[in-house]
Formats: sequence, structure tokens, C-alpha cells
Amino acid sequence: MSAQRSLKVGIAGLGRLGRRHAENLMRHVPGAILVAACSPLESELTWAKEALGIDSLYSDYEALLAHAGLDIVFLVTPTSLHPQQIIQALRAGKHVFCEKPLSLDLEDCLRVNAEAALHPHLKVMIGFVRRFDASYQDAYRRIQSGSIGQPFMVYSQTCDQLDPDGFFVKFAPTSGGIFLDCSVHDIDLARWMLGNPKPVRVFASGTIAVHTALVACGDVDNGVAICEFENGCIATFYASRTMPHGHETVTEITGTAGRLTVGRNPRQNRVEIADASGIRNTCTPSFFDRFQDAFLTEATYFIAAIQNRQPLSLTLDDATEATRIGIALRESLLSKLPVVL
Amino acid sequence: MSAQRSLKVGIAGLGRLGRRHAENLMRHVPGAILVAACSPLESELTWAKEALGIDSLYSDYEALLAHAGLDIVFLVTPTSLHPQQIIQALRAGKHVFCEKPLSLDLEDCLRVNAEAALHPHLKVMIGFVRRFDASYQDAYRRIQSGSIGQPFMVYSQTCDQLDPDGFFVKFAPTSGGIFLDCSVHDIDLARWMLGNPKPVRVFASGTIAVHTALVACGDVDNGVAICEFENGCIATFYASRTMPHGHETVTEITGTAGRLTVGRNPRQNRVEIADASGIRNTCTPSFFDRFQDAFLTEATYFIAAIQNRQPLSLTLDDATEATRIGIALRESLLSKLPVVL
Amino acid sequence: MSAQRSLKVGIAGLGRLGRRHAENLMRHVPGAILVAACSPLESELTWAKEALGIDSLYSDYEALLAHAGLDIVFLVTPTSLHPQQIIQALRAGKHVFCEKPLSLDLEDCLRVNAEAALHPHLKVMIGFVRRFDASYQDAYRRIQSGSIGQPFMVYSQTCDQLDPDGFFVKFAPTSGGIFLDCSVHDIDLARWMLGNPKPVRVFASGTIAVHTALVACGDVDNGVAICEFENGCIATFYASRTMPHGHETVTEITGTAGRLTVGRNPRQNRVEIADASGIRNTCTPSFFDRFQDAFLTEATYFIAAIQNRQPLSLTLDDATEATRIGIALRESLLSKLPVVL
Amino acid sequence: MSAQRSLKVGIAGLGRLGRRHAENLMRHVPGAILVAACSPLESELTWAKEALGIDSLYSDYEALLAHAGLDIVFLVTPTSLHPQQIIQALRAGKHVFCEKPLSLDLEDCLRVNAEAALHPHLKVMIGFVRRFDASYQDAYRRIQSGSIGQPFMVYSQTCDQLDPDGFFVKFAPTSGGIFLDCSVHDIDLARWMLGNPKPVRVFASGTIAVHTALVACGDVDNGVAICEFENGCIATFYASRTMPHGHETVTEITGTAGRLTVGRNPRQNRVEIADASGIRNTCTPSFFDRFQDAFLTEATYFIAAIQNRQPLSLTLDDATEATRIGIALRESLLSKLPVVL
Repeated sequence: MSAQRSLKVGIAGLGRLGRRHAENLMRHVPGAILVAACSPLESELTWAKEALGIDSLYSDYEALLAHAGLDIVFLVTPTSLHPQQIIQALRAGKHVFCEKPLSLDLEDCLRVNAEAALHPHLKVMIGFVRRFDASYQDAYRRIQSGSIGQPFMVYSQTCDQLDPDGFFVKFAPTSGGIFLDCSVHDIDLARWMLGNPKPVRVFASGTIAVHTALVACGDVDNGVAICEFENGCIATFYASRTMPHGHETVTEITGTAGRLTVGRNPRQNRVEIADASGIRNTCTPSFFDRFQDAFLTEATYFIAAIQNRQPLSLTLDDATEATRIGIALRESLLSKLPVVL
Repeated sequence: MSAQRSLKVGIAGLGRLGRRHAENLMRHVPGAILVAACSPLESELTWAKEALGIDSLYSDYEALLAHAGLDIVFLVTPTSLHPQQIIQALRAGKHVFCEKPLSLDLEDCLRVNAEAALHPHLKVMIGFVRRFDASYQDAYRRIQSGSIGQPFMVYSQTCDQLDPDGFFVKFAPTSGGIFLDCSVHDIDLARWMLGNPKPVRVFASGTIAVHTALVACGDVDNGVAICEFENGCIATFYASRTMPHGHETVTEITGTAGRLTVGRNPRQNRVEIADASGIRNTCTPSFFDRFQDAFLTEATYFIAAIQNRQPLSLTLDDATEATRIGIALRESLLSKLPVVL
Repeated sequence: MSAQRSLKVGIAGLGRLGRRHAENLMRHVPGAILVAACSPLESELTWAKEALGIDSLYSDYEALLAHAGLDIVFLVTPTSLHPQQIIQALRAGKHVFCEKPLSLDLEDCLRVNAEAALHPHLKVMIGFVRRFDASYQDAYRRIQSGSIGQPFMVYSQTCDQLDPDGFFVKFAPTSGGIFLDCSVHDIDLARWMLGNPKPVRVFASGTIAVHTALVACGDVDNGVAICEFENGCIATFYASRTMPHGHETVTEITGTAGRLTVGRNPRQNRVEIADASGIRNTCTPSFFDRFQDAFLTEATYFIAAIQNRQPLSLTLDDATEATRIGIALRESLLSKLPVVL
Repeated sequence: MSAQRSLKVGIAGLGRLGRRHAENLMRHVPGAILVAACSPLESELTWAKEALGIDSLYSDYEALLAHAGLDIVFLVTPTSLHPQQIIQALRAGKHVFCEKPLSLDLEDCLRVNAEAALHPHLKVMIGFVRRFDASYQDAYRRIQSGSIGQPFMVYSQTCDQLDPDGFFVKFAPTSGGIFLDCSVHDIDLARWMLGNPKPVRVFASGTIAVHTALVACGDVDNGVAICEFENGCIATFYASRTMPHGHETVTEITGTAGRLTVGRNPRQNRVEIADASGIRNTCTPSFFDRFQDAFLTEATYFIAAIQNRQPLSLTLDDATEATRIGIALRESLLSKLPVVL
């Protein structure tokens, strides 16, 4: 490892998740040096300078791409910017890590795919972080080793803790709706665990339990969906913004000889509390707490794949397919009919 | 209690579940005396005589109804016989307990309802036994007391352990399919927990993971479904014949302020085993093991309601509605379209 | 079974546990008929008449023994009466079931043993009810089948929920102290699980965490102890009157190839509650709730052993040994020194 | 943070745990730079150079101390060297982090304490890593906030997975025995959680379940102990080298209003496996897996305390007291008598 040159990374977007990536790249990811940051917000750039000591700060994305010697761009920007920013980065000769989802628009996904095909020496990965969680990795290995026989059914949920202030509602109009924002993770996991079967039909439903303001944008705060695959496999999804106890992402993979469940009861730590109310544990409050190690593993994997010139196991096709299915779920929710893919 | 006359019960059907009911009625249900048994099978009548000491044994159902002084009939007979046998019993002036489902045919359900309406002094109850399980009762009470706020979503599953011999396949053609056979419990529970909202639309899907012989009767061994209710509540169902670890019925009720989960990890007892494979518990192998106490509670409740002339909380309308939704699920599975109710 | 004559049982003592036994004998134990009850308290006899319809009511124990045709006596009387009452019953030709402990005095235990030896056709069993719990039975069978290799260590606790009123303090002076009252169960279980090794040395300690009135009788509300056996096996005991969450009896048996844990997290039922405080379950409030099935199994076993003339697996020697070790624990607590047995 | 000078660290000892510390110091601990390494083993120095790129490599400890500008020494050396090496480092003006235990000899502990008192501007911390685990920290905060009332009892165990090869037996003669090697952690935790009460008396017992070679050095592979404190608090300890399922450290703190349990069921990750054997999870195989995050938190805490000139919450007195109690436990094991402190 020591023999290899460290790769220079620039990051665009320093919101909550962007800062997490920036800290990891600066301190914990072997082989990477975070050398530049880009944001339209003065406060974010100030943070990059003060907290991380980064001197090359850009308010303009093209300026970031022009930073001398930059190898890699990390995009933690609004989803609507992803396709164009990825394409620009590829054209500038940079590897790209981009937060999920690739795009809310299938055409955009395909445009990115096409552009990436023109740069086979550059790597592009969309951050489906749950794939890099130690528990999901363990489950995947067990399936590969045949320990549950033939997997045929996935249940997967992404459920956020209720924020009584409904902060997320503000972003709902541009999030693509609950299925593209939350279930896209579950879609990706289902495909991964089931061996990438071809989806053939989806059906979705949903309800507004708390956040009535969602009516305006046709979204729901609790959604369920069924996705059928060509080979008879089925996936069921649940996404929620209103969990009482914390963030609970769960994935259950059922096979002919066993079943694996990842994440049921999202214990915050190893403490159990016995008191007059019974025996309990507290729960991880957010996606960040649940997957903080996975964000690091993800970035470490991406940097190592570039250094070692190894193909990525998580491809742009995976990201495109997740968007495609997510869009179909939204269509089904609105049309109240199954959508054939 | 001691002041009241014990009620005379006759039972029709002494298969596995019939014997369970017979033993409970004979030994453990206060206020009941099992005085007569009916079966077309010689072996079942012999069991009634030898194991329980019952002398009044009938091969003919009408003869059972004519047994002098009989108050109540317990029907543990094939589903196809339920409607007519209930109607006959009502006309003979008997209270009726009948195993679920009421019928696979909605017209038949309505015929039974109509007949029962003519005999308001007679009680008829369909054995949705999960309602009488201590854990389900506890969950229901918590919901009633407001502890989860407004319930709006139910996930409920009835999953049987895989029988590699596929014994159940033999009965599949007459079982009504997986939704009417298994999910009918979950449908009933969802309605109960959500306060009997009116169902408006269902969608179902399924797959055959193991028992390929089911193709012949259009059934599946794993089915999932979504049911929407008028008030925005949603229920998701899962039924399986292929669980690797045991019988696992689970019901999860989510409200605006809390979530209750009943039955996740169907521990067989209070033993935990630590060995080279980790830490584990064994699981209840079958519905019988899981609900053996509930069968007794159910019968005890029914007998007490008759003795105390109290209305039943579980009505024929409940049973009819469960069948109606179950039929819609099957239709959706076959038509691949949502079914509007 | 039907061919055998039912055995006539008389019960002495109708406190909380006595009533439990009486109801079981009257309604649920095959082969037994509860025909007579004895108590010095008018209210208890009234209950026997009204709740169970028992007509033969005695305020005098000798009168109970003289009840015509009585086969068996169930003693649920104060511990100080056990030895003499057992001896009287044996001399009257009755089988005897007696609640634990046999006695607080080793001489008395030996006197009972000697008397019983004179009546080999009569059975005497002391109610170490935890042996009859389905989970403990499962653990025992697993040990017997070799699934944990050679068992060498037991941790066992009997912990009662805190009663802020300290009702039990009233009985503390005659209970024999926490080790003879509570740990006697754990002692018996340790011996059973470990194959009845000979105890050689004990050491005990304790503290008063809440119930300061215990100082007067030299007792504690939390006690711990170590017991060494001849073969190198060790048992550790914990008894408490001050659990915040419920009654929690736990037994952990460690062997060279596995470990079994019985009763950790005393779930009251199969409900899990997720709310703002995390995910929790409620706990069994008392010994009665935890072992209600075991009381029935215990009585059923005893009656069947008499009917089938089979030797008891739980002997008077077991009960004597439990008392002997329990006394040594108390001595160690008071002397602050190990006690050699 | 960025304004502060990074502290230069030298490490002595690069065995398994030493390498862990070295990697953390090199890559993950803010404010620290690992600049030098010391080991008598050529292979360890080679590793330091190749894996971490450290150029200043010493086979001699005094040479390490003489490294120009060194601020801190990390000692991950054999226990017998700790006291002298700490004293040397202090005299050379270095802060010292030293792996536990401080020493197996009480006089040595006191000598170190005395020396440290002469250098109040230098910090010395012994690595009781469990204090820095997120779950233990959470438990401690809950106790401090009064959530379990007054804590009065601790049960704490350090149980290692069985190594059939008995690799540890080789080190047993110099480990100080199971109580000084393993339980010293539990002793420290009990003191911490209970508010550092003064110990007054201990009693210990033990057995050899598997590793018969331990007879030679008077050690056991399973030990239990009771420790009484002046204020009536009690701690019970269990240490084992023979767990079948993994490394399981557990600490249970019971108070008058609640109980906290840390680490029961040492889940390796968030995967649950359902198969024909039931439902299970795998377990953390070793102390390293269980506490890998805590080693980093510990070093981070120590470096930050030096940088910020803040007093350590974990003191040399704590380490001395743990050794003092651990020695008493060993004495009790050998003498078969309680030891008064």
C-alpha cells in the first residue's frame, strides 16, 4: 500500500453527509487525500477550512474539476445535479463517487451510463451504502455460500424516525417521493441479494399517517410495494417517515433452506435497560448512526478499487435499475395500477 | 359459576384439531361437558370413546344434532361443509362454534349470516384463534388504550414450516389457496387491530418456491398482498408454506406513536443455546404448538359468552369479511390486477 | 388412563399457592379428584366451598387425614409444619405432596426421610416446581443428550420484583432467610443439572439494598453465594427481593461444549413494544406468572407416578440436600466464613 | 484542534494488540503522530516499517525514550516490564499509556504511583479499554444520571472463547492467573460503576474444566469470585477461558430502581439466521473484535486529555486498586479462605 501514490480527492457538497465523507476521506480512508472542496455555501467552505484544514475551496464546480492533479470527485450534491456533474467529471478525466440516487429520471441515468462507457478507465460508483455495511456483507456472503439454499423472497424496509417538525417535508417535492428517496436502497439490496433478476411488474400503495402537507406533492409518509421478478422472485418494500423508536432499516432474505434477517431491532449499542417498564434497548436514531461505519467502508472500497484497478461490484447499471424500479413504484402509487417493466 | 348448568357440547370432526378441541371441552373448559361426537371415520369415533370416554358416537351429522339436550355444536369439519352444517345446527336450535374459515364462497357466508339473523338467541362463532392468544389480546388492549396513537398500518404473516413431503399439497385444491387458508387469519387480525375499516382494494402476488405440484391448482407456496382500507389504513400480508425454522406468525401494528410486534422469533421456550454456531433458540414447529393455549381460551370464551348471554366480540360479519377479502386476494393473484372491493 | 380409579386428594393450606394447586387438582390434573380441604382460616374454607364446590372442609389436619378413602395429601402450609404433617400423613397411609422447602431444619429433614423409608409404597415429593417447567425440562434433556459436553458450572438466580411495601418482610423471620427461601430452588436445580455432585464448601454474602427492616432478623434482600462440589463443579447463586422489572429466575449451565440459559429476559408474552423509549417487552411480575404451567405439570407428574407406580425422579434426598446446602449458605452469610459440608 | 501541535508518540511492543494501537495512532487518532517503534523482535520492527512506514525503529527501550522530541510512550509490553518502563518514561519526561494490568505486584504499583506523583505534569493511564466502549460509557452515564437509583450490585464477566489448542496456557505462569489477567477488567468496571467504594473482603473459587495443564501453575480456566465493599455494595465476577460460542464480556449493574446489562449475547453483527436449528446469531470471537472501536476511543481520549491538559478520569489509583483486589482474589483461590483487604 505504501508504495502507491495517494489519490487526490475533491468533494462537492458539504451538508451533513458531505461532511461525513469529507472527514472520512481526510482522516480514515487509506490511499486518499482530500485536497479540495466545493460548495455554493460560504459556511460549508469555512467548515472545510477550519475543521479539515483544506485550502483549495471552490464555489464553482468547474473550478473544482480544474484543480490541478485531482483524481477523484465525490458528489454529495442535490440529486438533480448528479447526472450533469458526473458527466462533467468524466469528461474532465476524474473518477466519480456520487451519493444515491443516480437520478430521478431514467433518461438521465442512461445518459450517464453512455458517457461512462466512453471512459472505461474511469470508475463511477453510486453510494448505495447499505451494501457496505458489515451485516449486509455477511448476509451476502452467506447467500453466496449457499447457506439459505435458493433465495426467492426479500422483504426490505427503510424507516426513518418520526420528526414531528416534518423537516423532510420541505424537500419532498424534489426528493422524487418516498420510493425513490428511501426504497431505492431496498430495491438495490433486493436485486443484489437475489442475483440481479429482471423485474417484470410492480405495485405500490401508500398513506399519509402524519405529514399531511405531503398531499401537495402527491407523496406519502408510509409506502408499501411489491416487485415481481422474471424468475419468480418477489420483493416487498416498506418505507416510512414516521417510526416512533428510531431509524430501522431491515432486510429479510428468504431462501429454500434458510432465512437471513439484517437489522431487526436497531439496537443503538449493547446496553439493556431493565426498569418498571420492562426490558428494553434504545435504537439508532438515524441512518447516519446506523451506517456510520459503512460510509467509511464504502469510500475505502472505492479508493482501493481505483488503486488496484479492480472492477466495481456495484455498477452504474445497478443504480440505473434501482431508479427504473423506483420510478415504476411511484407511477403505481399514483395510477393505482400495477406497472409492467 | 357453580350455580350454572353445564352446557352440553357435541363435536363433529376429530382430526388433529378436532381432538384438541375435544380434549379441551372434556377436561379444561369450565361450564362445558362434551357429551357426543360425530365423524364419518370409525377410527375417530374409537378415539373419542377410548381417550375421552364418550359414549354417544354418531357417524351422521343429523343424528348428532338430534342428541337429546345438546346445547352446542363444535364443527371441526372440512370447510366445504361449514355453511350447511352451521345452518342445520341453527335450525336445530344449537349454538355453533365452527373452525375457520366460514366458507370459501361469499354467497355461502351470506346465507349463514342470514340464517343466524333468524336465531338471535343462538351464538355462532368462527374460530379465528389468534384473537384469543394472550399476546394478541395484550396488543389489542394496548391499542385500545391509545398506547400507539392512531394505528394505520398492519403487517401480518402466517408462515408454516416447510414440510419436505408437501403433505399439504394434497389438500391444496380444496383449501381455497394460500390466502384463504392462511392469510384469512391475518386479514381478520388486521381488521380487528385497525378497528374494522372498510377494505377498498387489494393486490396480491405469489411464487412457488418449493412445491411445484401447486401449479396444477393455481396456488402458490409463498404469497404477498397489500390491502387498502377506506380510511387510509394499509395491511400487508405474507403467507408461506416453506419456512426453514418453524411456524412463525407475526403481526406488526404501527401507529402514530408506537408500534407493536407480536410473535417475531417464535421461541419454542425460554432456553437459549450457546455453542460453536452462536447463540440460538429453537422455534415452535407448528400452529398447534404456537396457539395451544389460545384454543383453550377461545373455547372458554365462547362457552362463557353463552352462559352469560353476552354478545360475541368476534362476529359472523368478521368471518364473512375475512372470506370476502381472501377471495379478492386470490382473484388478484390470478388476474395479476388489483381487485376493487 | 380411563381404566384407572381416580385418586382422592385432600389439600391443606389455601393461600395463594394453595388455591392454585386446588384449582389444578379440581379441574386440570388427570386422575385426581380434590375431595377435601383443610385450613385454620374460615375464609379459605369458604373459598373452597364456593369456588370449587368442595363439601368436606376441615379446620383440623388430623380430621383431614381421617377423611374416608383419601389417597393423597397436598401440603401448602407454613414450612414449620411440613415435617410433622408429612410424618402424620405417612403414618395415616397417604401419599404426600408438600410445597418447598421440606424444612428449615436438617434434623427434621432426616426424620421425614426416616419415616418415609418405613413406607416404601407411599410417595413423598417436595414441590421444586422449576424442575417441571417446560424450559428447564428441555435444558435437562439437552444436557442428558450430551449437547453441552460435560457440564461444570451453574449460575442460577431467583429474583423477585421489588414490592415497595415490603410485604415479604413480615414473613422474613420465619422464612429461613433469603437462601433457604429463594436459593433453595437454585440449589436444587444446580444439583439436578450437574448430576447430583456432592457439595463440599459454600461461601455466601449479601446486602440490604432496600428493606432495612431485615436487619432485625439477620436477613438480606440481595444475596450471592458460591458452592463448590467434590467433582470440581461450581454453582453460583443470586437471590434478590428488589428487581425493578419483574420476577426473573435464570439458570445458566455451562459445559465443555455448550451453554444453556433458561429464563434470561422473563418476557411476559410475545409482544414487543417500540416507542420513543426504544424497543421493549414487559416481564413476568411474579413466580406465579412465570411458573403457572409448571405447577400443573408438577401435580400431573406426581399423580401419574402414583397411578403408574413409578419411582419419582425428585426425591426426599434431593429436598434434604437442598436444605442442607441452604443452611450452610445462611451460616456463611452470618459467620462471614466459608462453610465446609 | 488544528491550532495544536500534534503529539509525537513512540510505541513499545508490537504484538497483536501493539499493532492495533500502532495503526490507530498512525491513522485514526487526531492529534497524534506515531514516530517511533521499539521491539526486541526484528519481525515486529519490520512490520512497523513496512505496514506503517515508521523509520525510527529501536530494539532498545532506552533508545526509544531518547528519540528526539518524543512526547508520549505507548507500552504494549509484557506485564512484568510495565512498572520499570513507566518509571523510566516518566523520568525521561514522557506521558505514558500502558496496557493493563499495571503490574501483578502491589509494591510495584505503589512505586509507579509514587514516581508519577513526582511528575504531576505528565499523564499516565493504564488501558482499561472497556471503560471506553460506547456501551459501557452509555451505562455509566445512565447511572450518573440516576436512572437506576442507587447501584449496589455488579455482576461482571470476562469470558474468552475456548481455544482447543490452549495457546494461552503457555502464558499462564506469567499472567498472574485468571483473576489478574481477566477479572482485573471486571474489578475496574465494578469500582467505576459503583463509585469507587472501598473493598473490604473477597472470596474466590475456580475449577479446571478443560486445560488440565494449568494445574502446574495453580491456575484455573474458570473462576468465580465475590467482592464485598465497605458501603454494602457487592460485586460478583466470573472469568472463563472455555466459552463455546465466542468472547462474551458482560457487566450487569443493579440499582434500587433499575438494572443495566452490557454485552449479554455478544452479537457479531446485525444478522439473524433462521434455519432448521432455530434462530441464531453468531458471536464476537475475541476481545479484539468486541472492543476494536474502544481501543481507538481510548487512545483518542488519552491524546486529547494531554492536549487539553485535562485530568484523566481513569487514574493510576484505579489501576493499583484493580491489581490489589485481583491479588486478593488469587490468594483466596489458593488459600480457600476469604481475604480481608
